[in-house]
Amino acid sequence: MASSKRISPLPLNERFATRAQYFAPSPIRAVFEMEMNPDVISLAGGNPELTHLPWAEITRTSNEVVTQHGLSAFQYGTTVGQPELIDEIQKIMALEGIESVPEDILVTSGSQMSLDLVAKLFLNPGDTVLAAAPSYSGALNVFAGMQAHVAQLEGDDEGITIDAIEAAIAHAQSTGSDIKLLYVVPNFANPSGVVMSYQRRVDIVKLCRAHRIIIVEDNPYGLINFGVDLPPALRTLDPDNVIYLGSLSKIFAPGIRIGWTDAPAMVHASLVPTAEASAICPSPLSQSIATKYLREVDWHSVLAANVDMYHRRAQALDAALQEFLPAGCNWVNPTGGFFIWVELPEPIDASAGLLDEAMEEGILFIPGTAFFLDGRGRNALRLSYSQAGEDTLREAARRLGALLHRANRVIDL
Amino acid sequence: MASSKRISPLPLNERFATRAQYFAPSPIRAVFEMEMNPDVISLAGGNPELTHLPWAEITRTSNEVVTQHGLSAFQYGTTVGQPELIDEIQKIMALEGIESVPEDILVTSGSQMSLDLVAKLFLNPGDTVLAAAPSYSGALNVFAGMQAHVAQLEGDDEGITIDAIEAAIAHAQSTGSDIKLLYVVPNFANPSGVVMSYQRRVDIVKLCRAHRIIIVEDNPYGLINFGVDLPPALRTLDPDNVIYLGSLSKIFAPGIRIGWTDAPAMVHASLVPTAEASAICPSPLSQSIATKYLREVDWHSVLAANVDMYHRRAQALDAALQEFLPAGCNWVNPTGGFFIWVELPEPIDASAGLLDEAMEEGILFIPGTAFFLDGRGRNALRLSYSQAGEDTLREAARRLGALLHRANRVIDL
Repeated sequence: MASSKRISPLPLNERFATRAQYFAPSPIRAVFEMEMNPDVISLAGGNPELTHLPWAEITRTSNEVVTQHGLSAFQYGTTVGQPELIDEIQKIMALEGIESVPEDILVTSGSQMSLDLVAKLFLNPGDTVLAAAPSYSGALNVFAGMQAHVAQLEGDDEGITIDAIEAAIAHAQSTGSDIKLLYVVPNFANPSGVVMSYQRRVDIVKLCRAHRIIIVEDNPYGLINFGVDLPPALRTLDPDNVIYLGSLSKIFAPGIRIGWTDAPAMVHASLVPTAEASAICPSPLSQSIATKYLREVDWHSVLAANVDMYHRRAQALDAALQEFLPAGCNWVNPTGGFFIWVELPEPIDASAGLLDEAMEEGILFIPGTAFFLDGRGRNALRLSYSQAGEDTLREAARRLGALLHRANRVIDL
Repeated sequence: MASSKRISPLPLNERFATRAQYFAPSPIRAVFEMEMNPDVISLAGGNPELTHLPWAEITRTSNEVVTQHGLSAFQYGTTVGQPELIDEIQKIMALEGIESVPEDILVTSGSQMSLDLVAKLFLNPGDTVLAAAPSYSGALNVFAGMQAHVAQLEGDDEGITIDAIEAAIAHAQSTGSDIKLLYVVPNFANPSGVVMSYQRRVDIVKLCRAHRIIIVEDNPYGLINFGVDLPPALRTLDPDNVIYLGSLSKIFAPGIRIGWTDAPAMVHASLVPTAEASAICPSPLSQSIATKYLREVDWHSVLAANVDMYHRRAQALDAALQEFLPAGCNWVNPTGGFFIWVELPEPIDASAGLLDEAMEEGILFIPGTAFFLDGRGRNALRLSYSQAGEDTLREAARRLGALLHRANRVIDL
């Protein structure tokens, strides 16, 4: 017998489910750890700026939750969420013109969990999900994790094109895959910044209904609006076939982990037990803190001031990019949301290597490949202007410009 | 054209995934809504008693989280959780003799989410999970939701028997199903109250390792101990093949939704991206509040006093059951945890009908069928003594006794 009793680690990964291969660390979260470095200017994460929240009032309301409602806030709660919070959620949706009934709303521990619930409820292995090219990587991971095929469709400045959807439908018919969901961020999309036009919304809603494709409308950024008239929500255009996902992460704070679904009754009825099996209930403490903030604080004014700040930052970054980026870079001056999607001249590859160089220069961004499951996006990157001040954004753009000029030159040799 | 523009709801349920059929509302959660009725004595939910928590100190520490750490507590956090909380979690596990390394620990939004992550990571449709008969319904739902076959195995007063496991292995070999996991609550099991013996732990650990069955050790009640010497954790007996699930829900408060996994490195490495795709991160606000409570409050004394209280309640309920229940009812006086599992004389059916009658009498319990996926448990019920005072428990037992005498008589006619 061996003298050591140390047992070798078992290869437990051989016992993983097939889907485990799709749960890969996301590039965004990998960068999140790097963002903790205070010497780095981060244009990476989609973190909201919390500095200007009304902290004295948040302290007061949070304190009252503990002193007045501690016994319920620290106890288990219902799976659907607190009626008082659902009431406030309805008012938030009403700001974007969405009429809702409380019976359709499920409070979740953030939109990522909402996506997880929808994916669990609808996706069999081999089903297809349609999404934009590029799309929010967290959503792509969830769909892939349920072993769905994600078809990322080209769009124009009005959103995913009808031609692309029709081609995807024809392709799925030829392969026998069932297109279950179309995932879309119609307002200030992450990462492209695109706002889907009214006509495109109408056309997509019609096409999806005809083909029994359920629409998942993810709208975290709708209220981060720099002054455009947004078309009606898809949920409003076809309430029977659209599942709407909302979140407090960008308009209040992500650390409380509160999102919600507003879904057709038949879907809602099955999302609730799916949520129960996933997490029992959203945190009653977080819900109570959110409710009191939304009820007792003039959060509309706070948000308006923050949106002005994001707007100024977007303009500052746009101007600095114009000043410093090499010719051939393309982007759109954002009208809302947190991001600028920069397409680079063809020779520049923005995947891993460039990010390492950027780290050395003290800046961070998300390589475009993070927003595709199929390797596309190598000549693009996502810049977030939500976390840094205007002067800092200008400095970041200067460093990025130097980097890209160098990358361009090296490859031109 | 029709004069009404009202569109009929689409049968979206026809588009659900195969697994959706397994996401049924749980009997425990259904009863949870009824528990809100203040006229009802609930012996149903596994809610901890929060009345005697040190509210002044919780108010102070929670307040300091907001005032001193608001910017990070309300922001996104890392997926694995805060190092300070992981440090406190290690100390909690050490109280039960479990040595851990911080790199193996993942903070989750409660043990239900831990179960969901493990199920996602390991279970393909058709795989088998071994569990006790009866078992915590929330775990059964998660495994079933990943389309696993759950084999609920008979046990004795030392836990699931080796014979039952060997028979299940033989059966799985004959059907070609892959047994991936064995799920066990070794300490004060929910709902049976059984503590798995040392020898049974050793035998199960050996058998599972030999058959490449990974053990999921769920231990929410280990510290709700009325004075027994608990055998070592399975995680300690075989750290390479056991995934340990811990929770603050019973020893502090469930409303903050904080649990954790302590898993072999190879499993941990894949649980993290699975968690990221499920919920991005556990609430930094909840984590900060938990950390400060565990660090700055003398929670050991608070817990000791609460455990004494649960012990007195358990004894009060046990005595009252002896006084009021008809002959032929069997249960074990609990040595820890929150529950008494009562087996009824054969003619009494404790499923739906009896609960309706109990509601009319103003008491609630969980029918035994909730703890099986296969219809067993009709002659059993779970009583929780965690939420009601001693006199109230006696009154509940009196009402339950009257009900069971009546049920017995009716069926005897």
